[in-house]
Amino acid sequence: MIENTKRLPVLRVNEQGRRKTDAVVVSEFPLTIILDDLELVTLLCSPKDMDCLAVGFLFAEGFIEDKRGIKKIAVDEQRGVARVTRESPAEVDRDILFKRLITSACGRGAGYYSAVDARLAAKVDSRTSITPDDVYSLIEEFNRTSRLFKETGGVHGAALCDTKHILVFCDDVGRHNAVDKVFGKCILEGISTEGRIMISSGRTPSEMILKASNGRTPILISISAPSDLGVRLANDLGVTLIGFVRGRDMTVYTHDWRVTDV
Amino acid sequence: MIENTKRLPVLRVNEQGRRKTDAVVVSEFPLTIILDDLELVTLLCSPKDMDCLAVGFLFAEGFIEDKRGIKKIAVDEQRGVARVTRESPAEVDRDILFKRLITSACGRGAGYYSAVDARLAAKVDSRTSITPDDVYSLIEEFNRTSRLFKETGGVHGAALCDTKHILVFCDDVGRHNAVDKVFGKCILEGISTEGRIMISSGRTPSEMILKASNGRTPILISISAPSDLGVRLANDLGVTLIGFVRGRDMTVYTHDWRVTDV
Repeated sequence: MIENTKRLPVLRVNEQGRRKTDAVVVSEFPLTIILDDLELVTLLCSPKDMDCLAVGFLFAEGFIEDKRGIKKIAVDEQRGVARVTRESPAEVDRDILFKRLITSACGRGAGYYSAVDARLAAKVDSRTSITPDDVYSLIEEFNRTSRLFKETGGVHGAALCDTKHILVFCDDVGRHNAVDKVFGKCILEGISTEGRIMISSGRTPSEMILKASNGRTPILISISAPSDLGVRLANDLGVTLIGFVRGRDMTVYTHDWRVTDV
Repeated sequence: MIENTKRLPVLRVNEQGRRKTDAVVVSEFPLTIILDDLELVTLLCSPKDMDCLAVGFLFAEGFIEDKRGIKKIAVDEQRGVARVTRESPAEVDRDILFKRLITSACGRGAGYYSAVDARLAAKVDSRTSITPDDVYSLIEEFNRTSRLFKETGGVHGAALCDTKHILVFCDDVGRHNAVDKVFGKCILEGISTEGRIMISSGRTPSEMILKASNGRTPILISISAPSDLGVRLANDLGVTLIGFVRGRDMTVYTHDWRVTDV
């Protein structure tokens, strides 16, 4: 039995008729993140790598920059609480927090599309390049690694790679959580995300691009489709956005100079 | 050219080589919802049925109960603002709002899993039933209707149905938005959701179940997979959860007494 899943009794109906059987479903777990005694948010997540999720979320939301900023992480798996203490706790503006958290949510939020916020986001200027063959073989490796998805159809995967191999892979019921977990794991394990490649199994809306630019990751590969706003943002932030990788076919939406022949 | 999409220049790479061409991507639009002069949230959405989205969002979040509660709706498509004025504006508790909005987001939130919140959610006790053949033919109609998805791979669809046909169909870049639009359209057009059937193209995590129980919709059909928490919640709230409908094969996770042979 694969981890982070449960076997539940179900009714299966098909041409052979009706029968009581059981099915594997993915687990969803409420994790509350407490930052310096302030209850920040409760995420629904896959109950694995929860320390990485907490750290990656705090990184994406701008509360921490690197490992040195973290004094202590304590995950209480019974109660569903991740408590992160910073070296130098700063006051959290509840009103800004409110806006940021909305922004961080799937399909909910657009805080960053204002001129002010776009200026705050860092443009990625890495010279990393990749060949189409490397993209195809990274995606093959990614698909092989996504076992939980294949088993349950219920999770998203994300990975940090160099041009040849996957360095860190995480999956989660939440598309954003999977990406946050990858960045969190990189921070905790001292793996640089700069100049590297991010793969996401999900669609690539605008916030994925922001997470990539945040981590100075110049190439974002998605199996699925981007939005027009995502393409605009990737263009503005210097991120090479590759989508719809199917077999030996792919579409490069922005900064295609990073896709080279050799 | 299909609505809510844009054609953008891209680099296509496949076995035929590299060529500059263009590709259709789905539009993503930031819509700010203002309720009685309070700026509530900015959603990233597909720029269609935005009045329905605003109303459906306010319904899902408990700010309005029906059409009678709405005095005026004004959508400014230029500025991306939907302003909804209620007949009897009530004070909005910012702290509760904060928690609710987090909960409403994809993969973010678990407010409802506390005992208190579960008690507040209404159990659906409708006697509506459906045959497997009706499920298969509804899903066929649903798939035919999802043109935008087929064209761009970037949106989710949702539909309200009786046992024979789709009554309301909406799509959106956000899975939750699509469902909110359907409920909003029902409220605005006076279509009862009670005792009816909801279809979602996306996964069915716990919040989908809450939206269904909110609308007293007893049957939720998904093409994709539920989570263990979603199954538990559907079980508790009296919702029949059908998933993984592929051809003439489906899995009934909860309350399978509503799936009848005739």
